[in-house]
Amino acid sequence: MYFDKAAGISGVSQKTLSHMKAPDCMLKVTFPIEIKDKVEIITGFRVHHSRHMLPVKGGIRFATDVDEQEVTALAALMTYKCAIVDVPFGGAKGGISIDPKNYTDAEVERITRRYTVELCQKSFIGPGTDVPAPDVGTGAREMAWIMDTYRQFHPNEVDSIGCVTGKPIPLGGVRGRNESTGLGVYYGIREFVSYPEVQKHTGLSGDIKDLRIIIQGFGKVGYWAAKFFEQNGAKIIGIGEKECGVYNPNGLNIDKLFNYRRSRGSFLGMPNVDIIEDPLEVFTKIIILSSLLF
Amino acid sequence: MYFDKAAGISGVSQKTLSHMKAPDCMLKVTFPIEIKDKVEIITGFRVHHSRHMLPVKGGIRFATDVDEQEVTALAALMTYKCAIVDVPFGGAKGGISIDPKNYTDAEVERITRRYTVELCQKSFIGPGTDVPAPDVGTGAREMAWIMDTYRQFHPNEVDSIGCVTGKPIPLGGVRGRNESTGLGVYYGIREFVSYPEVQKHTGLSGDIKDLRIIIQGFGKVGYWAAKFFEQNGAKIIGIGEKECGVYNPNGLNIDKLFNYRRSRGSFLGMPNVDIIEDPLEVFTKIIILSSLLF
Amino acid sequence: MYFDKAAGISGVSQKTLSHMKAPDCMLKVTFPIEIKDKVEIITGFRVHHSRHMLPVKGGIRFATDVDEQEVTALAALMTYKCAIVDVPFGGAKGGISIDPKNYTDAEVERITRRYTVELCQKSFIGPGTDVPAPDVGTGAREMAWIMDTYRQFHPNEVDSIGCVTGKPIPLGGVRGRNESTGLGVYYGIREFVSYPEVQKHTGLSGDIKDLRIIIQGFGKVGYWAAKFFEQNGAKIIGIGEKECGVYNPNGLNIDKLFNYRRSRGSFLGMPNVDIIEDPLEVFTKIIILSSLLF
Amino acid sequence: MYFDKAAGISGVSQKTLSHMKAPDCMLKVTFPIEIKDKVEIITGFRVHHSRHMLPVKGGIRFATDVDEQEVTALAALMTYKCAIVDVPFGGAKGGISIDPKNYTDAEVERITRRYTVELCQKSFIGPGTDVPAPDVGTGAREMAWIMDTYRQFHPNEVDSIGCVTGKPIPLGGVRGRNESTGLGVYYGIREFVSYPEVQKHTGLSGDIKDLRIIIQGFGKVGYWAAKFFEQNGAKIIGIGEKECGVYNPNGLNIDKLFNYRRSRGSFLGMPNVDIIEDPLEVFTKIIILSSLLF
Amino acid sequence: MYFDKAAGISGVSQKTLSHMKAPDCMLKVTFPIEIKDKVEIITGFRVHHSRHMLPVKGGIRFATDVDEQEVTALAALMTYKCAIVDVPFGGAKGGISIDPKNYTDAEVERITRRYTVELCQKSFIGPGTDVPAPDVGTGAREMAWIMDTYRQFHPNEVDSIGCVTGKPIPLGGVRGRNESTGLGVYYGIREFVSYPEVQKHTGLSGDIKDLRIIIQGFGKVGYWAAKFFEQNGAKIIGIGEKECGVYNPNGLNIDKLFNYRRSRGSFLGMPNVDIIEDPLEVFTKIIILSSLLF
Amino acid sequence: MYFDKAAGISGVSQKTLSHMKAPDCMLKVTFPIEIKDKVEIITGFRVHHSRHMLPVKGGIRFATDVDEQEVTALAALMTYKCAIVDVPFGGAKGGISIDPKNYTDAEVERITRRYTVELCQKSFIGPGTDVPAPDVGTGAREMAWIMDTYRQFHPNEVDSIGCVTGKPIPLGGVRGRNESTGLGVYYGIREFVSYPEVQKHTGLSGDIKDLRIIIQGFGKVGYWAAKFFEQNGAKIIGIGEKECGVYNPNGLNIDKLFNYRRSRGSFLGMPNVDIIEDPLEVFTKIIILSSLLF
Repeated sequence: MYFDKAAGISGVSQKTLSHMKAPDCMLKVTFPIEIKDKVEIITGFRVHHSRHMLPVKGGIRFATDVDEQEVTALAALMTYKCAIVDVPFGGAKGGISIDPKNYTDAEVERITRRYTVELCQKSFIGPGTDVPAPDVGTGAREMAWIMDTYRQFHPNEVDSIGCVTGKPIPLGGVRGRNESTGLGVYYGIREFVSYPEVQKHTGLSGDIKDLRIIIQGFGKVGYWAAKFFEQNGAKIIGIGEKECGVYNPNGLNIDKLFNYRRSRGSFLGMPNVDIIEDPLEVFTKIIILSSLLF
Repeated sequence: MYFDKAAGISGVSQKTLSHMKAPDCMLKVTFPIEIKDKVEIITGFRVHHSRHMLPVKGGIRFATDVDEQEVTALAALMTYKCAIVDVPFGGAKGGISIDPKNYTDAEVERITRRYTVELCQKSFIGPGTDVPAPDVGTGAREMAWIMDTYRQFHPNEVDSIGCVTGKPIPLGGVRGRNESTGLGVYYGIREFVSYPEVQKHTGLSGDIKDLRIIIQGFGKVGYWAAKFFEQNGAKIIGIGEKECGVYNPNGLNIDKLFNYRRSRGSFLGMPNVDIIEDPLEVFTKIIILSSLLF
Repeated sequence: MYFDKAAGISGVSQKTLSHMKAPDCMLKVTFPIEIKDKVEIITGFRVHHSRHMLPVKGGIRFATDVDEQEVTALAALMTYKCAIVDVPFGGAKGGISIDPKNYTDAEVERITRRYTVELCQKSFIGPGTDVPAPDVGTGAREMAWIMDTYRQFHPNEVDSIGCVTGKPIPLGGVRGRNESTGLGVYYGIREFVSYPEVQKHTGLSGDIKDLRIIIQGFGKVGYWAAKFFEQNGAKIIGIGEKECGVYNPNGLNIDKLFNYRRSRGSFLGMPNVDIIEDPLEVFTKIIILSSLLF
Repeated sequence: MYFDKAAGISGVSQKTLSHMKAPDCMLKVTFPIEIKDKVEIITGFRVHHSRHMLPVKGGIRFATDVDEQEVTALAALMTYKCAIVDVPFGGAKGGISIDPKNYTDAEVERITRRYTVELCQKSFIGPGTDVPAPDVGTGAREMAWIMDTYRQFHPNEVDSIGCVTGKPIPLGGVRGRNESTGLGVYYGIREFVSYPEVQKHTGLSGDIKDLRIIIQGFGKVGYWAAKFFEQNGAKIIGIGEKECGVYNPNGLNIDKLFNYRRSRGSFLGMPNVDIIEDPLEVFTKIIILSSLLF
Repeated sequence: MYFDKAAGISGVSQKTLSHMKAPDCMLKVTFPIEIKDKVEIITGFRVHHSRHMLPVKGGIRFATDVDEQEVTALAALMTYKCAIVDVPFGGAKGGISIDPKNYTDAEVERITRRYTVELCQKSFIGPGTDVPAPDVGTGAREMAWIMDTYRQFHPNEVDSIGCVTGKPIPLGGVRGRNESTGLGVYYGIREFVSYPEVQKHTGLSGDIKDLRIIIQGFGKVGYWAAKFFEQNGAKIIGIGEKECGVYNPNGLNIDKLFNYRRSRGSFLGMPNVDIIEDPLEVFTKIIILSSLLF
Repeated sequence: MYFDKAAGISGVSQKTLSHMKAPDCMLKVTFPIEIKDKVEIITGFRVHHSRHMLPVKGGIRFATDVDEQEVTALAALMTYKCAIVDVPFGGAKGGISIDPKNYTDAEVERITRRYTVELCQKSFIGPGTDVPAPDVGTGAREMAWIMDTYRQFHPNEVDSIGCVTGKPIPLGGVRGRNESTGLGVYYGIREFVSYPEVQKHTGLSGDIKDLRIIIQGFGKVGYWAAKFFEQNGAKIIGIGEKECGVYNPNGLNIDKLFNYRRSRGSFLGMPNVDIIEDPLEVFTKIIILSSLLF
């Protein structure tokens, strides 16, 4: 883990470091759900890495690779992310070890609500305690179910709507959440290239307009990052996805690419771009790995 | 695990079985404690195997081999034990991964109270929810600390004293708890040998007075089991402990052995008995493995 | 209503009387349930007639004729019944205006749980407040659903199991509840015929063995009342049900009748009894109208 | 009801419509109050029409015509009003079926507080649940009593002051509430006449200064509506009240009329105006029926 | 104080003693009550001397000499009394500094309820915390008001009726409470004279029938103590009250005396007894000072 | 007390005045703390003078002269201070009767946390009820301990951080609190000298620049008051402290004085000032007694 490496050069006392590393608490629940005519046992997690600031924050993901180790590591990252941008939240993460595509909407709803009941009864959710957010495999719809379940348990709590972020806008969600992570990527890189040392090492000018960028992953994060770079004058020359990458040294049109891929499910057949099977790293100095960002 | 073997011959539907096997929920907490001038990170657990009956019951152990797997397995055993004797409790188990002998009394108290605070805040303790009990490394003293901490958090709860069993008698404990597990061993075996099939296979008469018994482990459980067999006429011919075993085919005097070992810390040097280094199984048909019973 | 008639001869002050008559509070809820592919709006009620003693008690019925007036009147009857037998409960009644036979079991479960959520959120259920019971159209199964829903909302309440009576025995129900109303009928009539004035007016001897009884209604109440009279030597000479009545001046065999009707759905074709279409009142001095008793 | 008519042209699915129509829940309470030396039974209501947004909002009225139907209908109107102006509140309404003029101030206070106790115990009030407001027969004084009673029950709730609107300003009330409904009438009509279609149908110019207005009802709403129209240049040519109407085609002076009527209790005898017994509709295209607005 | 004297010979460590002496916590409240047309400021107290056992128990007295010192001292006595008879309660005492005879019943009710609201909001009452009882100037009526007020604040608490002792029997009071203190006096003295040392020092025989007793104070305690001695064969030869004492060396008839004094308000004029103005100590070896016992 | 004098000329009714004078409620707690090898009994207080506005506010002081009278009087002053500046808070004050210099940091922490537990259990702290602040002998460190203890008891309360003011800034404290009281002194005097009547009586010009000021007490309040006057052009000619005063008719340099005294513990030996043992009143018209201000 990167933690020990950073700890070695941090100058922080060993005792504070060892406390920073361990997750404060972890809840693991298993519950049965009737799927058609058999019963499946579903396993879910919620980890609070650090409650030094409350509430803790972090996504809830629905994916088959969700397990105790992964959720704990991601919760720790949330603590560091919150600390770096100096927002008064601790770090958390949760998840259910399922592939939501294998279930009907009604079944996903029942799993989500059942998991939330467990969080409610064990105080692992609440506007002053722990405020989940969407993550891999979850979105505004799941947040709405979580909020509704939470409010059944806290019908008189004036702030109950604040028990999750990433809600649908008509239910109290905040505008701009969709594009926020991509925008953060844009801000981060803009800041990064503004440092003289960076410019010296990379030969980049520091001006966004001079950047030639390749984006790995073209989901919610990658699309919006690409949009913000494009709007500010940078040239997006390549985008990598599972099936293949697209490349055009003169710059790609982000919205055209997005719509093409949404309607056909793939970049294959896209006109005016080179379809590239190999990794894209060779073409540029800046590759944004959007699939690692949440 | 024995579970799958029993499941195969149970005739219970797969869906009920798979739910019976998985623990309902597990809480893992880590917290820092200042020991002298450094900070230790302590890890504790509490598992609810089955909440089909409430409250859940099960001990809290303080031992270095406490981990997630062990606590989960022991919680499952509690469910089956409660179901077998038909008491309306679910199964649970908890523990802290420390060797209490490495800490001062004041430090053990702080660790116990801090762990209890976590249980309180996450609803993993309470007379209607989860009622812990003493286990390896804990006793009436730890239960008193847990009860006191719980009551600080629930000062107005009329049943708050019922949040643990195994309390000191002046604080509301029940007489007879010390000898209860040993007495249960005695009752179990008395029942077992009363079955004709058992008698046919073993050649035992079914009469306690005819039993010749070896007891493996001479702590609280082993001592009291031995006492009850002795009182009811059985002959205790051997007792095994870590340092060695003692053997006398004419029967041992339980209280003498107990007092001797308590004052000297070992059976070595005990008069009128054979000191035996080898396993004791060869001598009898009944060996009670008291160290597995809690 | 009978209330005013009794009030006139009670000698109780007008102000106490007017308070006794009005129900203390009434909750009416409507909620949507998805049934197949359309939405039905379900209406439910819960009335507390008198909270002078707590908890209030009274059944929850599922029937199409449930409405505000009926539920309110039945709640008042519960107050008087509790006062007459001097148990420390107030009177209540609730219901949902559906015919449960029109819904699948899963749909009835969802309706029952949804109704219970409303009772929980508005404090119209709880072991110290309001303890519902089975009634027309509900039974142990519905009580189990209500209890389970209540416990989700009060997971730490030590007495939560006491939020309903009439639960299944394995979930904490009390033995004898099935036969209790029928037994009460038997006790009531045994007491009634023991008074000399009654004997003078009716010509009955006061001895159960001399009674010749007709029972109107042969459900849970009628069956058990008949059983207890039969066991104590009375002669059941007629039983009336919807499809027809049965009559035998030498006495009927209760269990044979019950089993016959359960397997064929009707008394029709029963050997050794007269099938009678007319009302049965002409044959005896004692007719028990079991269908009015809950 | 207007609901079905609007529903028919709304294009909304039947299942959503039927849920929108039914009130979510209704509480009816009756309680005795000692008035001099007899006991009166007081009946009160609180209806939540739609909790799709929380808290629900709506007035509490004290009037003899308060009954279940009226309160339910007014609660539905509150839902639609809140939805139309897109504020995140559900619709509610409450009331007590008394004429407050028949009681002393101390008696009204006791009735108000007793009714509030019922709302508190049944969770029909609270800053996150249900926030009542003044209505017919209630005002800032009643809201202060309700708030004080609520705070007795929730002494530690940080937002408890938000349990009612329309409080006296020194107790946390908001300035401008008195004139707010009248101002809303003014804004609504100003908006209405600004549409070309309206101007075409009515022949009005769209300029407030060209309006000639008659106001039906001269209480809090009518007075302030009249004031705002007068201030913005419209001509108030008639005002209708119970005893009679006043009319002056050259415009009326609102404050003079108001003060005259307040001191004498009637418009009769007012100089420089025509006293008119007949309905006023004939004189103008705009009549504001302020008595329907709350 | 007697405490230090007993402490000196107790052999208990100084640190335990100093903790035993100090009261754990004290609540003092003042509140305004409108009496006719002026406002009086009422002062009330509640002291918990020792919460080592919960709930704490102790009376609430209404008397003009109630102040912080008196209530604190009486709370300490309650701790010792509970410890001596080994019941699991801590010691408490409360009071309001008024002479209830100066107020109407309605005013006393309002004062009692207002005081109870303060106790409720500050957790100084509750079946698991602090259970008051009648004392000087209070009785079953005040307890009923306290219970009713408490239940308004805890409408769903299943044990709420246990928030006071000394309730009226129809509201859940326990039979025998009236005579209990007097019976305790009888038991205490019966036990006392059974010790040989006591018999040696006093010359008493140890047989109740040989006792000649004078009772100082003839209220609830004195009357019942006298009754129990009389029933068991002792001779009551004198009774002292405020106005005078009565004396008859051949024994007094307790019920006659009680009825006489109740109807006339004084012993004066009672036939067949000597009226005595002086203290009664000279006549006997046993004087029971009932006015000190609560 | 000044209260009666002000009351006499206030024109407020006697009944309102007598309610304003009495403190609403007072909690006194005593608890044992192990200090080394003996037990000390610690006494603490918290007084709510007026809860007419909530929350109440006021400091917690640790000083040997803390007693019931002092805390009550200071709580009353808080009510008047809050009312004068028209902030919606009631008045409170608390304290523990210790000299914190006699205890180690760990002991002060244990005392502070134990006292806070009592406040939590008796509802004498909370963001909606009572919000303490630093005072004599307490500071940001103690507030952090109080906040942390409070949050243990209210882990899910969204506003729990608001249970004290004067927290350390990283834990949610507000910038500017250190200098706030001194700034208030400056504003108060600036306002005072701006009145023509004051100028007429004192001969002062009303311009801050013309003031010559002596400050009595040079702690947090005195230092900051001096700073603000200096920054705005007034001349600080004298400062009085326990050991002596300093005087310079040409004006003192505040930061130099402050640093000198902080490093040496006294003004003695300071160059360029006169060291003065006598009271300083003779030198000026304005003396600020900072030691009376909190």
